[in-house]
Amino acid sequence: MARASKNRYWVGFDLGGTKMMAAVFDKNFNIIATRRKKTKDGKGARSGIRRIAETIEEALQTAHIDHRKLGGIGVGCPGVLDLDRGVVLQAPNLGWRNVPLKKELERTFGCRALIVNDVDAGAYGEYRFGAGRGARCVLGVFPGTGIGGACIYDGQLIRGRVNSCMEIGHIHMQPKGRLCGCGRRGCLETVASRLAISAEAAEAAYRGQTPHLMELAGTDLASIRSGALAAAIREGDAAVEAIVRHAAKDLGIAVASVVNLLAPDVVVLGGGLMEAMPGLYLKEIRAAIKRQAMKPYTQHLKVVPAKLADEAGVLGAAALVADSV
Amino acid sequence: MARASKNRYWVGFDLGGTKMMAAVFDKNFNIIATRRKKTKDGKGARSGIRRIAETIEEALQTAHIDHRKLGGIGVGCPGVLDLDRGVVLQAPNLGWRNVPLKKELERTFGCRALIVNDVDAGAYGEYRFGAGRGARCVLGVFPGTGIGGACIYDGQLIRGRVNSCMEIGHIHMQPKGRLCGCGRRGCLETVASRLAISAEAAEAAYRGQTPHLMELAGTDLASIRSGALAAAIREGDAAVEAIVRHAAKDLGIAVASVVNLLAPDVVVLGGGLMEAMPGLYLKEIRAAIKRQAMKPYTQHLKVVPAKLADEAGVLGAAALVADSV
Repeated sequence: MARASKNRYWVGFDLGGTKMMAAVFDKNFNIIATRRKKTKDGKGARSGIRRIAETIEEALQTAHIDHRKLGGIGVGCPGVLDLDRGVVLQAPNLGWRNVPLKKELERTFGCRALIVNDVDAGAYGEYRFGAGRGARCVLGVFPGTGIGGACIYDGQLIRGRVNSCMEIGHIHMQPKGRLCGCGRRGCLETVASRLAISAEAAEAAYRGQTPHLMELAGTDLASIRSGALAAAIREGDAAVEAIVRHAAKDLGIAVASVVNLLAPDVVVLGGGLMEAMPGLYLKEIRAAIKRQAMKPYTQHLKVVPAKLADEAGVLGAAALVADSV
Repeated sequence: MARASKNRYWVGFDLGGTKMMAAVFDKNFNIIATRRKKTKDGKGARSGIRRIAETIEEALQTAHIDHRKLGGIGVGCPGVLDLDRGVVLQAPNLGWRNVPLKKELERTFGCRALIVNDVDAGAYGEYRFGAGRGARCVLGVFPGTGIGGACIYDGQLIRGRVNSCMEIGHIHMQPKGRLCGCGRRGCLETVASRLAISAEAAEAAYRGQTPHLMELAGTDLASIRSGALAAAIREGDAAVEAIVRHAAKDLGIAVASVVNLLAPDVVVLGGGLMEAMPGLYLKEIRAAIKRQAMKPYTQHLKVVPAKLADEAGVLGAAALVADSV
């Protein structure tokens, strides 16, 4: 750690589509205080930035820490970012366009702010403090409503020139595939994301093939969350299990391709689907990697569940700003 | 460049399955002398190492450079390597297993030797001196008999813990695909390598659909090289063109997925197929990237042909050993 960080405190912030969370850390990254709020008050970016600042302010008050003791604020953000300028170029989940978040936070708190991709923040948290601790090359894969990816190579997050990258969810899988959120067809997200699984399960439910899922969540994709899928499988819906396993296999095939490209030492698996069905996901992904990845890259490879759950994002964002000083 | 490299000369060596080449460079990487030999004398690794040493020795003599003025020798090698120990673990093309090439060369020439993957050496050459010069992130893609890939990120070759990586040729493309050289099924190489194209073209030739190719090369895969495919297309074999275009599209889809993962600034295209049909390959791969890669990663992306041809490998290997001092 740089000398400047002595006796300094750090804030990690996780800006999600539905909730936001601020955490205050001491110089050893012990968590001192946290504060959560709902993200949306429907009043646009200006109001959103105010809510972020309030959440940080309240976390600092709870921790009894003055602004002046802050070494920096790291914020994990969804959407397309300008990493160097700290601008949220486009975040459909937030309804934001061209929001200069870094500048606003630096003005408000008088310390350095770093805006990073939310998936990168989570993966970096696992690399620094969790399941990928200190490894030479960590690949984070987070299957949930979308499918996020991130890679830390020799201590550095692999990033694009302007924005982050490692879009595992947009590896092309099917020439005649379904429409993806990115506007193209056949991406991994169209076959293996929670949304793709829910759509397939909803069809099965509608046809009467998944009685438990039908009772638990009906045929509305908004209700068929990872937890409902897991519960339906536990209660005996074989069709749901077959759908999820098939999706997990496809995810595994894509991860195996990335293993052949990047030869990570550790693959860390997180995200809503993995958290709800860790056994199933670990088994299918390990099997797919064994089948599809090349021997020199699998001999020492570990495929492990994420350890830090919700705290990965705030820890990673705080560590990223601290490590960049 | 490190101070130690002043007034030093460097050797770059390209160890191919059929031919080998040594080149002597001055400290500014001007080429002073080269020497080529056929690789195979069929007498095993010991004899192979002797031939390599002779080739280097003869190049040094031609250049009038004494061993003691050598800063180091960089060798681009095919197969599975132990990069840190400089051991060729397995190179089916050479018939080698567990050959301590680094140690042998260091003993013979009394200077540092670095053993690197041959594709990495070529891509690094293009990064340092050619089509990807100085870019933040360069992705090299080399479709030929196989399909090689390499990535230089922030000046560093992305590598595995022991061996190199970036196996673009082994991205999984087809669930029920053909058998690949790596033992699995459906890898990119089974649909887009020269060998896959030749097999498909040979079938068409056998069926009488490609009269020009039939005359030029018959139905033997060993004869249907990239040059023959290009010539058959020039002479009007529409079936050959359709087969090559289809393969180039599949290659483009795979490259687009890697663009979504690594967000390179430059994609450098080389290899036998690209060299024989640069227009076709550039067009199809650029179109596939435009279609399948995400906007934030394509806005500033350049997709360009390699510039250094055969010299990329020796230049890259020499620069890698020089840059690592």
